[in-house]
Amino acid sequence: MRVLAISGSLRAASINSALLRTAARLAPPEIDVTLCSVVGELPLFNPDLEQDVPSAVAQLRAEVAAADALLIASPEYAHGVTGTIKNALDWLVSFEPFVNKPVAVLNASPRAHHADSALRETLKTMSAVIVESASVSIPLLGANITEAGMAELPSVALAIRASLAALYAVVVLQQPEHGPTFPVDPR
Amino acid sequence: MRVLAISGSLRAASINSALLRTAARLAPPEIDVTLCSVVGELPLFNPDLEQDVPSAVAQLRAEVAAADALLIASPEYAHGVTGTIKNALDWLVSFEPFVNKPVAVLNASPRAHHADSALRETLKTMSAVIVESASVSIPLLGANITEAGMAELPSVALAIRASLAALYAVVVLQQPEHGPTFPVDPR
Repeated sequence: MRVLAISGSLRAASINSALLRTAARLAPPEIDVTLCSVVGELPLFNPDLEQDVPSAVAQLRAEVAAADALLIASPEYAHGVTGTIKNALDWLVSFEPFVNKPVAVLNASPRAHHADSALRETLKTMSAVIVESASVSIPLLGANITEAGMAELPSVALAIRASLAALYAVVVLQQPEHGPTFPVDPR
Repeated sequence: MRVLAISGSLRAASINSALLRTAARLAPPEIDVTLCSVVGELPLFNPDLEQDVPSAVAQLRAEVAAADALLIASPEYAHGVTGTIKNALDWLVSFEPFVNKPVAVLNASPRAHHADSALRETLKTMSAVIVESASVSIPLLGANITEAGMAELPSVALAIRASLAALYAVVVLQQPEHGPTFPVDPR
């Protein structure tokens, strides 16, 4: 399973980006988690450019199309989503491969409910499938955990592994090709 | 009164930008409405750049600092604020001249309540003062009105003039310098 991880923060020391890198490190062999590197290079969304999108947008779309699932972690700024994550999503509205895409939303700051709710509302409106079993809160904000420490903290490592396992269960194990392989009479 | 008008859409034919340009045209002599031209040139917000902000950010901040009030009109994308308007606001979080800034929020699409609510929540969190009497709904979306037609449509012209008058009443007329000019004994 190929998972595209998208952080909503461009800060080098972002706890959300660190969480996603940790997920990439902890992922079992059957799951490839790759951090999207192009989010910070996207121009601001402009519908006039939709016909001939800038290269960074084309790359984002290609990565989304190639992914079996998305893993999003984004901070809350001033009781809202970050402009950065919303801008990335604005470029994916009406992008056909985004429709029905399984998405897990990690929340590193459970007390910040405004951005989490708004992000989910937008994802649902864009016809993504939010995988609730994989969308977990991992309280890290203010916990003073280093990135190296995340993977070693059992509660964090466990939560990340559980999220990835749940995503795998929905995306891979529940797919038709894992059903009966003998011919089923359609009548 | 100097009003900085900020559109949340970069589309050339944006109805929100057209609405703000119409406000600039209809403004009485005592009110100067200027459309912020730098919103589309802002880089994506990155807290690491806060110490030495890019020039477009410095310009945005200077324009905000110089304005007596802001007039915001922004569309709703996928049941959320546009990444563009949120990105501009992200650069203004903790910018001291933004605190207590009077802001009028125009809504050109009254049925789109998600973005309007989220925008207001963010503005309040940033300690702006939303001037409710000046924050009006002007149903334009889907009305097939040209920009030239806006100023000529009595309902639209009236709503814009009422908004500006209400903003003026709060920002200028209710200020202390419009109170008694004779010395008041503080005892």
